Amino acid sequence: MITARALPGLPEVRPSDDLAALLAQARGGRFAPGEVLVIAHKVVSKAEGRVVDLAGVQPSPRALELAAVLGKEDPRHVEVVLRETAEVVRAERGVLISRTRHGFVCANAGVDASNAAGAGELIMLPVDPDGSARALRAALAGHPAVVIADSFGRAWRHGQCDVAVGIAGLAPLEDWRGRADAHGRELHATWIAIADQAAAAADLARGGKDAGEPAVVLTGLERHVTEADGPGAAELVRGRDEDLFG
Amino acid sequence: MITARALPGLPEVRPSDDLAALLAQARGGRFAPGEVLVIAHKVVSKAEGRVVDLAGVQPSPRALELAAVLGKEDPRHVEVVLRETAEVVRAERGVLISRTRHGFVCANAGVDASNAAGAGELIMLPVDPDGSARALRAALAGHPAVVIADSFGRAWRHGQCDVAVGIAGLAPLEDWRGRADAHGRELHATWIAIADQAAAAADLARGGKDAGEPAVVLTGLERHVTEADGPGAAELVRGRDEDLFG
Repeated sequence: MITARALPGLPEVRPSDDLAALLAQARGGRFAPGEVLVIAHKVVSKAEGRVVDLAGVQPSPRALELAAVLGKEDPRHVEVVLRETAEVVRAERGVLISRTRHGFVCANAGVDASNAAGAGELIMLPVDPDGSARALRAALAGHPAVVIADSFGRAWRHGQCDVAVGIAGLAPLEDWRGRADAHGRELHATWIAIADQAAAAADLARGGKDAGEPAVVLTGLERHVTEADGPGAAELVRGRDEDLFG
Repeated sequence: MITARALPGLPEVRPSDDLAALLAQARGGRFAPGEVLVIAHKVVSKAEGRVVDLAGVQPSPRALELAAVLGKEDPRHVEVVLRETAEVVRAERGVLISRTRHGFVCANAGVDASNAAGAGELIMLPVDPDGSARALRAALAGHPAVVIADSFGRAWRHGQCDVAVGIAGLAPLEDWRGRADAHGRELHATWIAIADQAAAAADLARGGKDAGEPAVVLTGLERHVTEADGPGAAELVRGRDEDLFG
């Protein structure tokens, strides 16, 4: 059985706050072996100071041009997105889809204003979300597996699902390719994104986007939890050269 | 808190089996109000006779041509995929991505050999998965919400996540657009694919692709469960005209 339980809301997280200490306090004790802690990336980003004040941003000519094309109100926001962008994948119909420096393909390079503490502030993804997950895992008593999550839209489907952008101690993928199904027949295309499904399950346990419950503890995933931190969310990134939709 | 618990494996499901009766037996009683039953589409498809024996399939010239382009061993398999396909979205690098007649974009139009009962048999998606979900909900004591799930690959990410292809009694999406976050700031891009996340959470509760556990019961989603069957998974389909990646 899988369980997903939101921890009590954290106090507002500020740059250089000790996020592990805040999470330990919310947990009220050690994490148990095999537990998975899923955290919305925003609190990680805030603790790491990955927040930018729009007042200090000067839009580049390219940001001004893209903002005009997209009908975006604030070219400074586009400027921040471009700074986080390795490649603009699509810019049309009011939507800017980027490949981030980490290789994630998502709207606005993961830059978001919602749940930022101050007006005119934008939150970026952590610089190295796998590293952030590893550091949190090391700092937390009981060393749970850690998944840092963000909400991504999907091609061809409405709505967003939470996915893993940083992972430590959880197998990102479970590979059944070449293994046999219940009838002994080879399973051809079964390669399961365990960590993304864990992020999605955790999001369901939150009270809602206004509830301020960034941290969720999952149990029942013991067979995917690893002693080593493992390859991280980098293993979930499909490179430009192997994707059919680049 | 969310819980996801796999029901005991069903016996092998055959065309015109009473799937609701088999599920009720596996459940060992009525479903409780607010529970969500997530079922792998394959057992629904089998009960509905959506199985085709390759021995009786004659590949069309287009299937022969595509099979050659893709390096697929069996043009009859490609023929079955094409019969389920409204539009070929991509055919390259050995992968055939279709828009199905339902509007889903996925590999091989959802046609799959794994977990088929007989050698040389392929399983297709139900003809009307939302209708299948509604019929199951109506037939099950306690009338749980029903989600029919399949594993879809994703653009730009490795691995597959389970998504909802049929829904009855669960809100497919939760719309926070225009509502306020924990700081009273408007949430711009928050439109959550609840039913897809429920499908993903349920998949984590299965023992594995060889465990033969197609049915999973979720609790904790009461706020998304509706008395009416609702719009179904059709609401999750992003149409050709609104997608940036068609």
